[in-house]
Amino acid sequence: MISSPNDPTARDTGADVYAIILAGGSGTRFWPLSRETHPKQMLQIVGEDSLLRETIKRIHGFVPAKNIWIVTTEDKAQDTRFHIDSLGSLAKEIGFINEPLGRNTAPAVGLAALCLNRLSPASIMVVLPADHAIPDGEKFLRDLKVAVQGAKEDSLVTFGIKPIRPETGYGYIKAARSSKTGSKGLLKVERFFEKPDLKTAKRYLSRGGYFWNSGIFVFKTSQILSEIQTHLPSLYDSLKKMEALLFEPDKPDQPSIPQSAFRNPQLVTLYSRLEPISIDYGIMERSPNILMVPAKFRWSDLGSWAALDEVIEKDRAGNILRGNTVSIGSQNSTVFAGDRLIATIGLKDMVVVDTPDATLVTPKDRVQEVRKIVETLKQGDREEHLIHKTVERPWGSYTVLEKGDRYKIKRVVLKPKAKLSLQLHRRRSEHWVVVSGVAKVTREEEIYLAYTNESTYIPVNTKHRLENPEEVPLQIIEVQNGDYLEEDDIERFADDYGRQ
Amino acid sequence: MISSPNDPTARDTGADVYAIILAGGSGTRFWPLSRETHPKQMLQIVGEDSLLRETIKRIHGFVPAKNIWIVTTEDKAQDTRFHIDSLGSLAKEIGFINEPLGRNTAPAVGLAALCLNRLSPASIMVVLPADHAIPDGEKFLRDLKVAVQGAKEDSLVTFGIKPIRPETGYGYIKAARSSKTGSKGLLKVERFFEKPDLKTAKRYLSRGGYFWNSGIFVFKTSQILSEIQTHLPSLYDSLKKMEALLFEPDKPDQPSIPQSAFRNPQLVTLYSRLEPISIDYGIMERSPNILMVPAKFRWSDLGSWAALDEVIEKDRAGNILRGNTVSIGSQNSTVFAGDRLIATIGLKDMVVVDTPDATLVTPKDRVQEVRKIVETLKQGDREEHLIHKTVERPWGSYTVLEKGDRYKIKRVVLKPKAKLSLQLHRRRSEHWVVVSGVAKVTREEEIYLAYTNESTYIPVNTKHRLENPEEVPLQIIEVQNGDYLEEDDIERFADDYGRQ
Repeated sequence: MISSPNDPTARDTGADVYAIILAGGSGTRFWPLSRETHPKQMLQIVGEDSLLRETIKRIHGFVPAKNIWIVTTEDKAQDTRFHIDSLGSLAKEIGFINEPLGRNTAPAVGLAALCLNRLSPASIMVVLPADHAIPDGEKFLRDLKVAVQGAKEDSLVTFGIKPIRPETGYGYIKAARSSKTGSKGLLKVERFFEKPDLKTAKRYLSRGGYFWNSGIFVFKTSQILSEIQTHLPSLYDSLKKMEALLFEPDKPDQPSIPQSAFRNPQLVTLYSRLEPISIDYGIMERSPNILMVPAKFRWSDLGSWAALDEVIEKDRAGNILRGNTVSIGSQNSTVFAGDRLIATIGLKDMVVVDTPDATLVTPKDRVQEVRKIVETLKQGDREEHLIHKTVERPWGSYTVLEKGDRYKIKRVVLKPKAKLSLQLHRRRSEHWVVVSGVAKVTREEEIYLAYTNESTYIPVNTKHRLENPEEVPLQIIEVQNGDYLEEDDIERFADDYGRQ
Repeated sequence: MISSPNDPTARDTGADVYAIILAGGSGTRFWPLSRETHPKQMLQIVGEDSLLRETIKRIHGFVPAKNIWIVTTEDKAQDTRFHIDSLGSLAKEIGFINEPLGRNTAPAVGLAALCLNRLSPASIMVVLPADHAIPDGEKFLRDLKVAVQGAKEDSLVTFGIKPIRPETGYGYIKAARSSKTGSKGLLKVERFFEKPDLKTAKRYLSRGGYFWNSGIFVFKTSQILSEIQTHLPSLYDSLKKMEALLFEPDKPDQPSIPQSAFRNPQLVTLYSRLEPISIDYGIMERSPNILMVPAKFRWSDLGSWAALDEVIEKDRAGNILRGNTVSIGSQNSTVFAGDRLIATIGLKDMVVVDTPDATLVTPKDRVQEVRKIVETLKQGDREEHLIHKTVERPWGSYTVLEKGDRYKIKRVVLKPKAKLSLQLHRRRSEHWVVVSGVAKVTREEEIYLAYTNESTYIPVNTKHRLENPEEVPLQIIEVQNGDYLEEDDIERFADDYGRQ
């Protein structure tokens, strides 16, 4: 299995089912809650965990952990791994396939099929976006069983969602009224349609037989590779070349690929030259071989802040209010607050989203334009689209409380028994005040403990390490002084998490 | 002169003009920018300085500093003094009259007249609200001269503002078309009208001869006392009793009153029993003796966030955008941001106001309901209506950066040469990290300097003092540890600012 630390031997020749979770999205549309380094799939906006972790837990009811692979891009791989870490032993069995950079879903699925084909040529792939909401997990699994049956019979199977309104933000699938497929619960797909205008969407809704395209697919690995060869021959050629770079030709059953293989410069070049195209457009719309499961589960692709209306329960006035809010006479509005107070009066069909460094205010019918805000921030060389004030790390998290002239203040929280890397800064010194827990401090040759309400000092150019020796979280306030206070002023000498 | 440190002797028997600035307002309507401890008159929302300081500077073009008195309430007196401190020597000459508590404007004017009558029985009072905007200071002074002339001829003189729209938020004055008063530029007032409904306001506007009531008045001190005797006899009786408490009967020319006199328990009781009534309603509407100056200056009482439209220049789309904002396609909207980013899309006639701990979002036509938000916060025993994260002090300011469980982080800024009080905390210790400047630290018997990038520690129950010995500001980060971290855990042993 590729890059999974466990199960290095199995070569399954049976019809094993594998889950391919596509987690490469940037999630601009959920700004300011999503950031470039904290994309939509990492948000907990629906349900009890982040969308990615919910997706993993959901599919884990159907396939073993070692059969789950996450496809993400090289730049997001480390953060994504850290993000799923809270799933414990489950997370450790999950494999990663790293695209050198994002090229839409057809190349991503192709790369995954390439790898999976080596491990289990007779496998069936379930392709799942990491950032969709499916509140009814059990219904989903029942429908999935039907889809797998269809895939076994050499079809490409998709899931159609029964439309409940004339949505213009989704693609549509027209299905045959009755199944002539031989497989129970599956409909023949007549055609895919791109996102329609409102008039067309209304017609689809009134005619019936039209479904929303969920973007969830099931097919044999061998089958999708063959379809790529037919419909996207240029992608297929490139995949073949990549295969030669990723696998040794004389070891056809090579069970795993080191992560570094995805950084092979030739592979990066090949991948960057691929045409960005979606699996929907590149394969599903072109193949005659498509079946559809009319889904019984609720679903939303959470395409924007307005889409929350579909999957979050509203109060009597139609509002969704989260966090520290005081609302007077508002209707059909969504307010996402954190610890800071968001007070609203008489809002109608509005969205307000607050984060520690940025707030968005917009009518629901213009939420799509949040992309323009993000674009403006990028052009202005700012940070509010890039990172959050609180950054998750494998050892815990840090929060930038204030940046000033030649100083920066952070709250640093270490999980029980966690430690930061042994490190050194060339241009800043650090004062640490322990506000809860006990800190174990390494400072050059010294090793000592700092208890709550004690402080210590790390001069510039001094090797140091912060560690939590206890079973309760450690919290310190760090005051940095220096002429350069960015994260890249760090030299690491040893790290529990393999960072350099 | 009452409580003014200078000019302890003068007893002016001529027609001296005095300015009485009413600065007792709480300014709920400008929440979240205004707070109970930082009311509207302390905000810099129009012009280059706070409304109160602008009011002082404006009237100082007409009367000497020693003739300016601020009437405020006991609980706001110290903060108000600190607030005007930045006016330098001008501030030192300004006198304070402290109401024990707010009882609307008639008692405030009565108390001021009582004091002023003792100092200068032949004086003329100009009564000015501290929180109005008058962008044309010179035109105002020209009109003021006209008003003073009227007051000399024993009239109560008010200023009428020519209405430019059918405003329902102001009271109206109906004036005679031509002056029969003998005084040039003054019109006889026929009647005052309470805030009208829209239909009535439109009628006033189309008929002409109606003016907005500005709440600015000029009269002889002796005259207003006599009018109070006639129209508010109960207030007059109480004032007479207060006079006996404030002044020694055998010293008719007693030139000043110590601030403590306003804390006399008998006076507090008398004052708290006064009927809260406005000078407009109690005197101006009842007296036959009223003249009006048709004002040539622009004016706004800044009654709400929506009123800013009258006095702040808007962009082409009718927006007022302040601070860190990104706005896409918004119209006729006001966004007041600070350092945090406020991003807006497609707002129409909305108001968004951001502060470090609270944000308000409301349509312009519902801004008056911000009172309800403040009421909700009060009932919830919260802090967002009470104080700002940054609190001004005579020695500089402090900003609460974070409150956690058993810890609190502050940025403390000391002006050049300023010092905090010699103090002690019973329940918290403090870590100080100097991030700019030099700190002089007193810790029990020790006195030492802490330079930038150095830290020090103040244990619980330890007498200490922080001082800035340099000519540049000092900035420290303070991390407090303890089980109780409120401002009232302080014992002061010595203070440059007379605090206890």
